[in-house]
Parts: sequence; C-alpha cells; structure tokens
Amino acid sequence: LVARMREFGTTIFSEMTALAVRTGSINLGQGFPDTDGPAAMLESAVAAIRAGVNQYPPGPGLPELRQAVAEHHKQHYGLLYEPDGEILVTVGATEALAASILALCEAGDEVILFEPYYDSYAAAVALAGAVRRPVALRPVEGRFTFDPGELRAAVGPRTRAILVNSPHNPTGTVFTRDELSLIAALCQEHDLLAITDEVYEHLTFDGVEHVPMATLPGMRERTVMISSAGKTFSVTGWKTGWVCAPAPLVSAVQSVKQFVTFTSGGPWQIAVAHALREELDWVAGLRDSLAVKRDRLMTGLSAAGFGVYRPAGTYFVQTDIRPLGFTDGAELARRLPELAGVVAVPTQVFYDRTALGRHFLRFAFCKKDEIIDEAVARLARLR
Amino acid sequence: LVARMREFGTTIFSEMTALAVRTGSINLGQGFPDTDGPAAMLESAVAAIRAGVNQYPPGPGLPELRQAVAEHHKQHYGLLYEPDGEILVTVGATEALAASILALCEAGDEVILFEPYYDSYAAAVALAGAVRRPVALRPVEGRFTFDPGELRAAVGPRTRAILVNSPHNPTGTVFTRDELSLIAALCQEHDLLAITDEVYEHLTFDGVEHVPMATLPGMRERTVMISSAGKTFSVTGWKTGWVCAPAPLVSAVQSVKQFVTFTSGGPWQIAVAHALREELDWVAGLRDSLAVKRDRLMTGLSAAGFGVYRPAGTYFVQTDIRPLGFTDGAELARRLPELAGVVAVPTQVFYDRTALGRHFLRFAFCKKDEIIDEAVARLARLR
Ligand SMILES: CSCCC(=O)C(=O)O
Ligand SMILES: CSCCC(=O)C(=O)O
Repeated sequence: LVARMREFGTTIFSEMTALAVRTGSINLGQGFPDTDGPAAMLESAVAAIRAGVNQYPPGPGLPELRQAVAEHHKQHYGLLYEPDGEILVTVGATEALAASILALCEAGDEVILFEPYYDSYAAAVALAGAVRRPVALRPVEGRFTFDPGELRAAVGPRTRAILVNSPHNPTGTVFTRDELSLIAALCQEHDLLAITDEVYEHLTFDGVEHVPMATLPGMRERTVMISSAGKTFSVTGWKTGWVCAPAPLVSAVQSVKQFVTFTSGGPWQIAVAHALREELDWVAGLRDSLAVKRDRLMTGLSAAGFGVYRPAGTYFVQTDIRPLGFTDGAELARRLPELAGVVAVPTQVFYDRTALGRHFLRFAFCKKDEIIDEAVARLARLR
Repeated sequence: LVARMREFGTTIFSEMTALAVRTGSINLGQGFPDTDGPAAMLESAVAAIRAGVNQYPPGPGLPELRQAVAEHHKQHYGLLYEPDGEILVTVGATEALAASILALCEAGDEVILFEPYYDSYAAAVALAGAVRRPVALRPVEGRFTFDPGELRAAVGPRTRAILVNSPHNPTGTVFTRDELSLIAALCQEHDLLAITDEVYEHLTFDGVEHVPMATLPGMRERTVMISSAGKTFSVTGWKTGWVCAPAPLVSAVQSVKQFVTFTSGGPWQIAVAHALREELDWVAGLRDSLAVKRDRLMTGLSAAGFGVYRPAGTYFVQTDIRPLGFTDGAELARRLPELAGVVAVPTQVFYDRTALGRHFLRFAFCKKDEIIDEAVARLARLR
C-alpha cells in the first residue's frame, strides 16, 4: 500500500458489520435500512433489466436521471441545474466525493473538514495528496456545532475547499442558515469551493429544514453539490449518486470519474429517476417513521444509562458513554457484542483529534422497531 | 481540473458514442453488444432485487460472487484464490485498475504500458502521480506484438509494474505464452508487479487460448489479476469486476477501493455469480457468434478498401486507412459520420507516440449481423 494511504485501515463500517455478523449481534453500526424502498421503484429497475438497459449508460449518466435530478432541485430548493453539463451521475456519493476532491484539489492544497467526519473524506483528501484541516463540532446545549473562530483560523493561503456535510453524519446536526452563512462568507472571502455531502437531505425531523449550501447568495457558482439515492429511497446498495455544479466544475469531476469507474448501473438510474419524480410521498412516510424510531432508540438508550444527543436528521443517535462509567468508545465498541450483543460505531474514528470523540458511541435507528427494542433491552444490561 | 489530469479530456468512448447519437450514425466505436446476456442471469438480478438485496454488500463483495470467481479460476486456469482475502469485487475492471494503481504505485513510480492502450490506464497512472512508460505493439506479419528489446529497455530503477492487457484492446492480440514469459521474466528479475486486464478472457477465436499471467511460474505471487462480467456475459453496464491476488495486494487495493466507491451493486453480484457457474455454455455460443461477426466485418472492411488486421480476441478489428488514401485516423473518425454514417475509434488516441497509430482506425463487431452489413455497405462509399 502506498505511503499516503497507510494511515487508513479497513473502513470502520466494514469492520463493524463483520463484527456483527461474526458475533451474531444486532447491527446498529453501519447505517443501512432493514426494509426495502418503494415497490414501484424496485419494479422500475426490474423492467429496465428486462427491457435491456444493461449496457454502458452515457458517461454523464442517463438523460432521464439527470432530468429528474434537475426537476427535484428546482422544485425543492429553487435551484436550477442544466441536465446537460451541470449534472453528473456517480457510483453513489462516495465516488462523487472522491472524484471531486481528486479533480479539484492539487497535492498540497488544504481541505477543511468538520470533525467528526465520514471516513472516506480524509481518505479522498489523502489520495489527492492534499492536506486536511479539521474543525471540531462540539456539543453546545445538546447540539453539535462549530466555533466560528476555529473555522476562520483553519483557513489559510493553501485552503482550496470546505467540505460541508449537512445533515451531518455522525452527529445528526442539520446546519442552520446562520451556520451555513458563516461558511459561505469564508468561501467567498477566500475564493474557496464548498463541496457538500447532502445524502440525508430528505431525512430531517421535527420540521427542521435542510438548506442546501448552493441556495445561499453567491454560493451556487462555487458549490459542488453531492447527493444520492441510497438514503432517500432505502437502496444503499444501488450506489447511485449525483454531482450538481456549474459546468466547468462538473466537467473537471467527470474527467476523473470517467477513469475511476467510467459509468454506473443503468437500471438503477432508470429506477431512481422514477423515484425522484413519483416517490417523495413515500419518502415523507420514511421520514416520519424514522423520527419515531429515533425517539424509540433515544428513550431506550437513555434508560440504559447513556448520555443521548437528539439528532435533527440522519439515521444516527450520538451518545456519551461516560454516565455508564466507560471512557473509551473504541474499547467499548469492541466489547459491546460480548457485553450486550449489539454493535455500534466508535465516533472517535471520525476525528483527527481522537480525544475529542473518545467518549462517544454512535447508534443507527434505521431498523425495524422490534430490532431497536431488542437492542435497547440488551443494552440495559450495561448498567 | 488539477494539473496532473489536464492532458485527459473526455474519454474517446463517450465522445464517439455522443457523436454517433448526434449524427444518427451506426456506432462501431465504443465496444458494447447490442443483444442481451443470458436470460436466466437477468432473471437472477430481478430475483435479487425482489428478494431485497438492495443494501450495501460487504466491502470485499458478496461471498457468493467471490466463491464463484474462485471456482471459475480453479476450473479454467487451475489457479487457486481464497474467496476470503484474495478476491475483491469492484465496480468493473475500470475501478479495479484505478484502485490497484492508486494503491500500489507511489508518486514518481513508473508503470509500463503497451501502447496502444485502453485510455483509463494512463489516467489512473496520472491520478497516482506515477509516470507511464510506453512500449509499442507493432504489426508483424499481420499481428501486433512488442519488441523484447524495447520492453527490456523500458524497465528502470523506478519501474513498479507492467500493465498487461490480453486479449488486447484495441489490437486484438492475444499474448502467447512466449510473450508472457518474456514479461514474466522481467517482472521477476526486477521485482515488478504485473497488473493484468483480462476482461476479454473468454472472447478468443480460432482456438487461440487465453493464458493468464498468474499461471506462469513464479507469477501468481506478483500478479494483480483483473477481470469483469461486462464482456463475458454482455452486461457492460452492470460494472461488476474483480481483483484476484495474494492477500497483501488485495488488501492494499481494497484500502483504496473502499474510499472510491465503497461497494457495488448487490443484485449484479448475485446474477454474475450465477452466470459464472451456469452460463459458460452461453459464453461459448457468444464466442462462436463473435468469431463469425469478426469475419463478416473483416470481409466488409477489406472490400471497402481498408487494410485489415485479424484479431485473435476482443470485440475489435484494427484497420489501416492508408490504402483508402487517408492518413489521419482522428480526422477520418471525425468525418466518418458525414462520409459514411458510421462511427469508429481513432486508435491514435491510445498512443503516447501518436504518430505510431496515426493511420489506424478501430471498428467493433459486437453488433447484430444486419448492423454490421449496413455499416460495411455504407463504408463502401469511401472508395
Ligand atoms: C458506506 S458504509 C456507511 C454507511 C453510512 O453512511 C454510515 O454508517 O455512516
Ligand atoms: C468503458 S467504455 C469502452 C468500452 C470498451 O472497452 C472499448 O470500446 O474499448
């Protein structure tokens, strides 16, 4: 393995899912739902396979899906993107992020990440030979947020981009318009790109609104807006995502993307185009059910003795293990199968400054009610 | 776009397919079949979707597919790979190649490529900050081959790997055991890796045998063996490939792959596992039908006045345009829609030393007979 990648082992998600399988534990680690997406969407993929949509789709993605993404962004956010030239279909948000960073960041450029961050961000920055600059999200009155001074101090002459993930995995924070405005102001002041990961755009709760960075004044032109179908339509394994940005940025991302995977599954593209047009009511139902599941898990985790943070979006509840007398989340995560027959993700792996997240443990609630109930019953043994 | 990628524009395949669509020409450019893969394989994907295999597969790929690849390699080549640790499922061979090069080549390392080469190789080398060293394949008595002295001279102190594509796109050469032995000897003498692209492994004609590099004495331990389902089972759009290599090499490739796309479509993996086990008779039929199509296209191209090279494998016929009075394949490819209503690929884009391939044009024959007939009828106008 090349030197620049040596600090990255196996992604925590594979590791924790393998641990769950090996120990027969309930897997509240990796974030994937255990119920299927809308039936008509699945049948749309079936029809595409049978209709012979099984050869290379065009490099930028099938026109149907690019058109559907354009309509979605217009209707939901009032954002206009041209299907031809401003939208690129990718193998999930992961490829979109990797290709964006590889295309837009020179070796030595700096990229600001809010820590804790999804683990592929740091790896993509390293692959590009770029340097990450972490800015911490810390709990303030029960909600994770950043210190504007710390963010400002992280910007330097080599800063190229700020990677903004909202709704934020793993803290559950949905950045407010004020928070986004602070970031946007810095981007404009220092001529930075915003690369946004918005895969949980539809999974916000309690009426909290998701605000895309590109909707802020002056930001559309400097934002690489990334999302995907996996979480919105409960098809995390279809790996179908998209990048929306002004044409020169999309063209750069495509230059890299075409040589990383060339293109992505045609039948998924047809089915996701259908879903973006026809299944947003289904998504509203998913969102409501997830809000209830979140409460169910939070209640159970509190009863089991965890300190619990209330997420405004995503699949995840962040907890503090110290009230239970534990101090190291990585150690507890390793022992949790044996102690309670449950798998969770130690949040500290998403930090550069591990100590900041040492006592956090992340639990997923995108699971059947009976699974959540059984998990919290088992976790009650920790007391 | 970052500096290291600036020499790469849009991949020739997207460009030429877009040209075909725009001009309504017959597309003998990009290599994809116009008939579907085996029906039972398609139905296997359908069943997987309906059975709910729609969430993240495990990072290394579904065990079913890794097991089926292991069995395939054992039965066909007598090669033993451990499904757990020595086989990694990827988003087609393209991702396998990119991840292998990114994982195994440091900035400044040199990679030997046989030119003309599939365009993503050079881009992947550039992404890694590595340096490509081309070795030419030239026609000798109607078959493209390399000069052993030129290959030997290309190896230097910074050489890390030799990328070996056989059956070779775009020349149609299937490397002989002797040719492979020369490469293998250099790999062992200079401690190099062989990274092999064997996606046309089942598409060889006239009884010519595909010999995997890893079967040569001493080579299994230093070969990263790559293939995919796209060409073997006529599902180029499913983007399902695999890497087989000793565990430390696979582990390195997976370290990169997991952060480039994380994972790949589960239903394709199930269906391809089925196909590797049950559909090799179907593949034999495909191979026979492609051999006939090859002859059909070669005859037509000769009659139209092209110089024609007989491919021993792949989807492609290489031609020389000089007998027709043309000298620049890139120019002819651009004008071909208007001159003849046909699209082909100018082979020179696959060379570093463009002049070597200036007069070649590549035509695909993985098309219905009536399409081939219509294309050659149109090309007869060039005389
Ligand atoms: C790509 S696997 C991780 C799934 C996920 O988004 C998470 O668990 O955080
Ligand atoms: C990845 S698109 C190219 C298809 C192909 O293998 C070719 O035409 O050479």
